[in-house]
Amino acid sequence: MTDTTETPVTVIGLGLMGQALAHAFLKAGHPTTVWNRTGAKADDLIREGARLAPTVAEALTAGSLTVICVTDYPAMYELLGASDIELDGTMLINLTSGDSAQAREAADWAEKRGARYLDGAIMAVPPAIGTAEAVILHSGPESDFDAHKSTLDALGTITYLGADHGLASLYDMAGLAMMWSVLNAWLQGTAMLRTAGIDAATFAPFAQQIATGVAEWLPGYAEQIDSGSFPAEVSALETDARAMTHLIEESEAVGVNAELPRLIKAMADRSIAAGHGGEQYPVLIEEFSKPGDA
Amino acid sequence: MTDTTETPVTVIGLGLMGQALAHAFLKAGHPTTVWNRTGAKADDLIREGARLAPTVAEALTAGSLTVICVTDYPAMYELLGASDIELDGTMLINLTSGDSAQAREAADWAEKRGARYLDGAIMAVPPAIGTAEAVILHSGPESDFDAHKSTLDALGTITYLGADHGLASLYDMAGLAMMWSVLNAWLQGTAMLRTAGIDAATFAPFAQQIATGVAEWLPGYAEQIDSGSFPAEVSALETDARAMTHLIEESEAVGVNAELPRLIKAMADRSIAAGHGGEQYPVLIEEFSKPGDA
Repeated sequence: MTDTTETPVTVIGLGLMGQALAHAFLKAGHPTTVWNRTGAKADDLIREGARLAPTVAEALTAGSLTVICVTDYPAMYELLGASDIELDGTMLINLTSGDSAQAREAADWAEKRGARYLDGAIMAVPPAIGTAEAVILHSGPESDFDAHKSTLDALGTITYLGADHGLASLYDMAGLAMMWSVLNAWLQGTAMLRTAGIDAATFAPFAQQIATGVAEWLPGYAEQIDSGSFPAEVSALETDARAMTHLIEESEAVGVNAELPRLIKAMADRSIAAGHGGEQYPVLIEEFSKPGDA
Repeated sequence: MTDTTETPVTVIGLGLMGQALAHAFLKAGHPTTVWNRTGAKADDLIREGARLAPTVAEALTAGSLTVICVTDYPAMYELLGASDIELDGTMLINLTSGDSAQAREAADWAEKRGARYLDGAIMAVPPAIGTAEAVILHSGPESDFDAHKSTLDALGTITYLGADHGLASLYDMAGLAMMWSVLNAWLQGTAMLRTAGIDAATFAPFAQQIATGVAEWLPGYAEQIDSGSFPAEVSALETDARAMTHLIEESEAVGVNAELPRLIKAMADRSIAAGHGGEQYPVLIEEFSKPGDA
């Protein structure tokens, strides 16, 4: 593939995810240089046409951009902070998992060494990389994102969130919170319905419909949060709280776990205690924005 | 409207919801008899053509079916259990809020007195009644539901769940658990993103997309539950648990509430401790099906 006109790229870190990223670049025709502490992990990629750089320093100079996907941020500093590494003029795209503070610190660190730096978060499992299903979030300077988006497109659905390097991590975590919450609510309902002999497959389309329907309310509810005004247009929190009591009692009565129902009610109760019982559900943003009980 | 050919109906209980139900029947052309402990609540409905029955006993004989929507089940027994009430031959549709055990008991009670009985749950606020948005769940004998569905259609999207009278309540509670969980996950994410200056309206479409996308997995995940086999086709629970730690840490680091993230992780940790770390998320059904920590 050395005669291609596609942008040359580098991938540092060949865990399952790094291998998937390199594979997707190769498949899209990008001359791809890889580096990994354990070179053997590059064997399959070399057969597909990748070049294994002998050192991190050489890997960094081989591509127009370097995608880094290692265990954690300390591992990245260990690799890129070595004395023989020249970051000046490099374009780093860090897809290593971490939090928003780590992303902002790494951006500072890299930029002080003359690198351009985008932080990213992969909302996908390795087998999905290279398909539209793999959403990859990016944050950092927009001009850097724009300059490299067409190359990154080989990896999945490439999304830009804003200049703050911490955003990719924050959106990623927020997305995971939604994912687990939908799954847990579905498991709660499934557990309840199974006590009446209803199987999971029968309940699932109902749960799906509710989740999708409620998700449609979010943009409207967001307006209440952004305006800081929560009129009870649909229902008041204190009415919701009475139904929450029913949910707890029903869960207990049929013998399933009631911790999720109890947490739902605890949050609402605190907001009601703070005087918001006559307002609408999104007023709970005030409780969710506070550290709360440890 | 007394010259209409539509089925005559009775509505007992004229709180906000009962009034909305009677109004929807009247609007659809059904001769509608109403009864309420406080007769004044019928004034608007009488102007719209409703007839106010002087007693519960007379109200019950006026319609082909009687919809009951009172405060709670004890209130229903108080009204329908009076010595002068003849239930034999009546068709009762109880839309009073309650749990599945109350619904099953009420069905027994009514059937012993010769009534036919459907239990129902209204997944809507009063202003939505009479529109397709108002989902009303029914459970009980299918032949009774079939016989009266076309009349009940005046009230909203009328759904039948099965012969077990407890199902309407169970599905209702399961649906509410999903509703509050989607809203809470969205609030969690919104609270996190607001610490980075991202407003709720900017984040809402992202949250909506995730909720809708994850909801699409439910039918497939349900197959794992129904088969009792949870191969880690997409990811293993122990991998999810590491990301849950990140969610907790990120929530704490940006100073928002971390109780929801901690509950998510606690459920997963218990399942991992029970030996399911290498299996897929739906294996958590075992934890959700147990009473758990009080």
